[in-house]
Amino acid sequence: MISNREQVTAMILTAKVRKALKWSQVADAIGQSKEWTTAACLGQMTLTKAQADVVGELFDLNDEATAWLQIAPYKGSLPTAVPTDPLIYRLYELVNVYGSTIKELIHEEFGDGIMSAIDFSMDIQREEDPKGDRVHMVMSGKFLPYKTY
Amino acid sequence: MISNREQVTAMILTAKVRKALKWSQVADAIGQSKEWTTAACLGQMTLTKAQADVVGELFDLNDEATAWLQIAPYKGSLPTAVPTDPLIYRLYELVNVYGSTIKELIHEEFGDGIMSAIDFSMDIQREEDPKGDRVHMVMSGKFLPYKTY
Amino acid sequence: MISNREQVTAMILTAKVRKALKWSQVADAIGQSKEWTTAACLGQMTLTKAQADVVGELFDLNDEATAWLQIAPYKGSLPTAVPTDPLIYRLYELVNVYGSTIKELIHEEFGDGIMSAIDFSMDIQREEDPKGDRVHMVMSGKFLPYKTY
Amino acid sequence: MISNREQVTAMILTAKVRKALKWSQVADAIGQSKEWTTAACLGQMTLTKAQADVVGELFDLNDEATAWLQIAPYKGSLPTAVPTDPLIYRLYELVNVYGSTIKELIHEEFGDGIMSAIDFSMDIQREEDPKGDRVHMVMSGKFLPYKTY
Amino acid sequence: MISNREQVTAMILTAKVRKALKWSQVADAIGQSKEWTTAACLGQMTLTKAQADVVGELFDLNDEATAWLQIAPYKGSLPTAVPTDPLIYRLYELVNVYGSTIKELIHEEFGDGIMSAIDFSMDIQREEDPKGDRVHMVMSGKFLPYKTY
Amino acid sequence: MISNREQVTAMILTAKVRKALKWSQVADAIGQSKEWTTAACLGQMTLTKAQADVVGELFDLNDEATAWLQIAPYKGSLPTAVPTDPLIYRLYELVNVYGSTIKELIHEEFGDGIMSAIDFSMDIQREEDPKGDRVHMVMSGKFLPYKTY
Amino acid sequence: MISNREQVTAMILTAKVRKALKWSQVADAIGQSKEWTTAACLGQMTLTKAQADVVGELFDLNDEATAWLQIAPYKGSLPTAVPTDPLIYRLYELVNVYGSTIKELIHEEFGDGIMSAIDFSMDIQREEDPKGDRVHMVMSGKFLPYKTY
Amino acid sequence: MISNREQVTAMILTAKVRKALKWSQVADAIGQSKEWTTAACLGQMTLTKAQADVVGELFDLNDEATAWLQIAPYKGSLPTAVPTDPLIYRLYELVNVYGSTIKELIHEEFGDGIMSAIDFSMDIQREEDPKGDRVHMVMSGKFLPYKTY
Amino acid sequence: MISNREQVTAMILTAKVRKALKWSQVADAIGQSKEWTTAACLGQMTLTKAQADVVGELFDLNDEATAWLQIAPYKGSLPTAVPTDPLIYRLYELVNVYGSTIKELIHEEFGDGIMSAIDFSMDIQREEDPKGDRVHMVMSGKFLPYKTY
Amino acid sequence: MISNREQVTAMILTAKVRKALKWSQVADAIGQSKEWTTAACLGQMTLTKAQADVVGELFDLNDEATAWLQIAPYKGSLPTAVPTDPLIYRLYELVNVYGSTIKELIHEEFGDGIMSAIDFSMDIQREEDPKGDRVHMVMSGKFLPYKTY
Repeated sequence: MISNREQVTAMILTAKVRKALKWSQVADAIGQSKEWTTAACLGQMTLTKAQADVVGELFDLNDEATAWLQIAPYKGSLPTAVPTDPLIYRLYELVNVYGSTIKELIHEEFGDGIMSAIDFSMDIQREEDPKGDRVHMVMSGKFLPYKTY
Repeated sequence: MISNREQVTAMILTAKVRKALKWSQVADAIGQSKEWTTAACLGQMTLTKAQADVVGELFDLNDEATAWLQIAPYKGSLPTAVPTDPLIYRLYELVNVYGSTIKELIHEEFGDGIMSAIDFSMDIQREEDPKGDRVHMVMSGKFLPYKTY
Repeated sequence: MISNREQVTAMILTAKVRKALKWSQVADAIGQSKEWTTAACLGQMTLTKAQADVVGELFDLNDEATAWLQIAPYKGSLPTAVPTDPLIYRLYELVNVYGSTIKELIHEEFGDGIMSAIDFSMDIQREEDPKGDRVHMVMSGKFLPYKTY
Repeated sequence: MISNREQVTAMILTAKVRKALKWSQVADAIGQSKEWTTAACLGQMTLTKAQADVVGELFDLNDEATAWLQIAPYKGSLPTAVPTDPLIYRLYELVNVYGSTIKELIHEEFGDGIMSAIDFSMDIQREEDPKGDRVHMVMSGKFLPYKTY
Repeated sequence: MISNREQVTAMILTAKVRKALKWSQVADAIGQSKEWTTAACLGQMTLTKAQADVVGELFDLNDEATAWLQIAPYKGSLPTAVPTDPLIYRLYELVNVYGSTIKELIHEEFGDGIMSAIDFSMDIQREEDPKGDRVHMVMSGKFLPYKTY
Repeated sequence: MISNREQVTAMILTAKVRKALKWSQVADAIGQSKEWTTAACLGQMTLTKAQADVVGELFDLNDEATAWLQIAPYKGSLPTAVPTDPLIYRLYELVNVYGSTIKELIHEEFGDGIMSAIDFSMDIQREEDPKGDRVHMVMSGKFLPYKTY
Repeated sequence: MISNREQVTAMILTAKVRKALKWSQVADAIGQSKEWTTAACLGQMTLTKAQADVVGELFDLNDEATAWLQIAPYKGSLPTAVPTDPLIYRLYELVNVYGSTIKELIHEEFGDGIMSAIDFSMDIQREEDPKGDRVHMVMSGKFLPYKTY
Repeated sequence: MISNREQVTAMILTAKVRKALKWSQVADAIGQSKEWTTAACLGQMTLTKAQADVVGELFDLNDEATAWLQIAPYKGSLPTAVPTDPLIYRLYELVNVYGSTIKELIHEEFGDGIMSAIDFSMDIQREEDPKGDRVHMVMSGKFLPYKTY
Repeated sequence: MISNREQVTAMILTAKVRKALKWSQVADAIGQSKEWTTAACLGQMTLTKAQADVVGELFDLNDEATAWLQIAPYKGSLPTAVPTDPLIYRLYELVNVYGSTIKELIHEEFGDGIMSAIDFSMDIQREEDPKGDRVHMVMSGKFLPYKTY
Repeated sequence: MISNREQVTAMILTAKVRKALKWSQVADAIGQSKEWTTAACLGQMTLTKAQADVVGELFDLNDEATAWLQIAPYKGSLPTAVPTDPLIYRLYELVNVYGSTIKELIHEEFGDGIMSAIDFSMDIQREEDPKGDRVHMVMSGKFLPYKTY
């Protein structure tokens, strides 16, 4: 009996290790970016029936698990409010150190409002650099203004 | 008597409102990006004497405040671990929803390690879009691998 | 010296008690709804220069305070993550008890996505009822769908 | 052995996915609003014997599970005090940003007291809009005044 | 300049020590119970103009403070979620140890619903006892049932 | 294998639903008040052998479970420091809103000390009222004075 | 204007440093143990008029401060729930490591109940030891049994 | 499969209830104080092979469990930072109320340093008293001074 | 089915107790330092195939577990933000007491930046001392400077 | 009026910026290591009269501040349990990632016990390295064994 999406995520991770799959292969198979595809497989996005069928086959999921992939999940991928994993903590640290800066610069350019985390996309690439390669992340989110009413 | 950098940040914010300065003007004056400059003025970076003198003049700071700008500050710009401000929360939400995804993809590309939040730069631009302009953020951080020893 | 919006909110609250003003009067004076107007005066919204001038005059604010009203504030009006005030706690309790319900019903109607808290408006009215009058709150927020990319 | 209502909620969610039921169908079957019905199925409300029998049949529950539906549950549907799911967080954000505003306006209209979260009903509808459909939520709660004694 | 009720509470406590007043004297002066009166003076209840004038005179408050007594306050009298003071902690402990018991017994008698903390009164008396006098607290709150809709 | 009292509480709750027992019946069977009896069955009190045998029979407990009922349990019946269940939260709210009041009045009557939560009893009754029946709770705890030494 | 006991504690600490007083001298002056006396001066106990007068004179307190010493204070002397100071943390660690042990042994000896923290006294002495002197703490608290009712 | 010491503690507690053993009997069997023995059985101390064999026999532990008793455990016996159990909370309250006092008196007697919680022993006895027997706890910890370097 | 690295860590700890292995033996077997090897076995580092095969054989792991050792794990080895185990707490205490000192001295020597926790190695040795042997820990991390951009 | 050590730390930090002193100069002046000296000036250690006089002169402290330097302070230099400053967080991360490793290795070498954080010294040096200089930290703490009693 599967009663939440996290169980499906665990099944996917188990199968991924066993079958030594790569996220980019999964992304190719369903024809979406590797960023969206990974987030979806990790329980953060909702798949269409066609996408879920492909994912189900790649990871040997049963029908019940495949059905759960098509249900909007309870999102949030961190076990604690402040993440302990060093890689993810660095992202949290950037929000902490640069949060007020990003707020100031978006307001200076656009006025009061936010960058959407829903109408949003992300792209992660290797940036070659003789002093050591870099992670290059591009985030693009629609600006949503506060309006008077 | 100034005993911490936060007091200097408050003086800068007060002067910025009174003199209606823009962060981009400050950045031009000290010859750095608007992202680094804003972070520095908000108490997250250390300025050189030359930079501090320019900032001090722009914001009418006294000598004591200008000296504090040249001291490495206790960093972190958020009043609570989970930020309440909607704009900054969206960044936190991205870390929460996409954190495990970013971790998986960086590891898939680079192996175990992190994206540095120190050897790091950021660029924020308006991305024009007929369906509504977007915030375009580029982050670049050096990949640092874990090694055996 | 004013270094954050909370100081201006405190000045407004002080003047409001002293002058016995009503929020509906302030709303009429700036020509916006009482909901937006109150939120703005309590430090959650950004005012235009014209609006700020009216508010400044009503509450006897000085120029510095009036300038701050036109700056996008750090938002969030609660002193603790779980509010202690009984009226505000009831709202939190509704999110806690009905949160999963609202999520299910919005997803059933719209698919995966959220109700915007930015492209949002609210209206609070007295609902007369022989068994005891009721508070009638209407909230309207744009649905924002998650999309694949 | 079932020892709490959360286990019954998990059974309902599992069956709902497997049988591809809609909350509105369940609501029709027991003759209540979709809002109350969903909250009840998610473990927040107590059902009568008749309602529990219908729900039990729809979700293939055994007698023990159906009995638990008739017991007043320990309420609260969120795994953390500040919800991580973006849809539910937006509701929390509204309480945070507008909480003090709602408090002020209810007190201005009714005097000191609260909007009941018990003598309460809610209605969620799609609000068609050429600029993008909206979520329209109506909440109605009895005003309960504080009295002297 | 007074910008919140807590400042008035501090003024009352200061004056109470200086003038060696008793809460029961204050209660007599405004003609209410000592429980409601004390809660009101400690910033948890709203006073009428007549009551506020009496309290203002007893504690030598200025007009601004007396005006604040007539504004519905942000309630909650504890500095931390779990109180450290031994007397108040014992009350918290009772909620912790007996909370599930009280819930069970109210539901057994009344069905699903709550005891109101708003339509509520309290009486505290000395209960003489040869083995040591006791604190006798009576709490009476209206039962509010959850209903279907 | 039973390794803590919480497992016994779960067994009791399961049996109570299955056998549709009432707490008052259990109380009659062991000859104690319904308040103490319910607290004991919910894992907050220690039973004598005789009491445990009666409870064990009523709820079909095995010998190991019956033995655990006679062991002083780790007490505390709430899953979180601030309870989410609306009925129990109202009790917490009373401590929060009236905590400082109760402290002041007990000190005014008795001097410095506490109301014992151990040498304590409680009685919960329905209080009939034409405007809606009320929950009537009486708490009686021995006053314990702080003394110098 | 003094509005809480913590201000008086600060005044005492300031004077103690300035006048280089020892707690044992204060204890001798008021004729109580050094443990009770120190706790009282640090804002955890209530003094009689006679005791307060002596303390007031020793620490050069004004009448208002001396009056506050006679009011039952809001107790609790730690700034955080888990203390950061190494000496006080060791005490917390003892509760953490030995807490379940002490509970088991008191229950084995006395049955269910607690050691009172109110009807309590403490004595701290130097214990000479050739391998390094030791801190010798004796705590004595009345056992209070839970009883059925 | 046993993967941590807590599982062994649960096995011991289960057997202790089933076999109605007393901690003092266990202490006699291994020839240590009842305080150290109980702490060891509750997973806070490391046993020698000889001690573990005795404990293993008394509680019918298998070889794997007996081996775990000889591994230094991850210590800490409380499920939450602030304990909810009334007996253990009283100890926490003593740290909270008397923590600063103990700190002052140890520093006054010994200078800056701590009482060791490692080079430490404890003794708990019944103290007969006509007004009600008392718990008598003696704690002895080596004083460790901070030194300059 | 293994769905996370923590399960593999539990398997390793279980086998280590059963087979009475030492970390230094494991380190020798894979030809790395005991510090890195232990951290890797405890789920904090990623092993190569060759290393994982050796570890798998030493601890009798199945293929699935051995595969998980080669996946970058979610790091962080403490169950709570502030560790309760006395040995690990002492490390936390050092960060708390000396954190600001280390920050000052690194900045004084190197300017603004950090000591890397990734490009990092550690060595723990016994330091013989007639007054009692000491733990000697050497930490070496690359200095990473903040730069302007 | 100075009522705690933190005020003296603030005075020292203010003077240090104004006079552009280095910690190593202060250490030389009082003849102690730069590590102990900095910790002492930052409010974590107690100074002798001679040391305090030197520090007082260097930082232009008045007599009251100099007296406070000789009082054992309430220790702990971080504003939050999990530090936000990137440099200090890296130390916390090391405790989190390597905490269980250090515990295992110390126990393997010494048996059950701890590394003292009191009988402790620390040395921080620049380690020259062609791939980038490193921070070299040596910590030495006495091993304290748990013993039976």
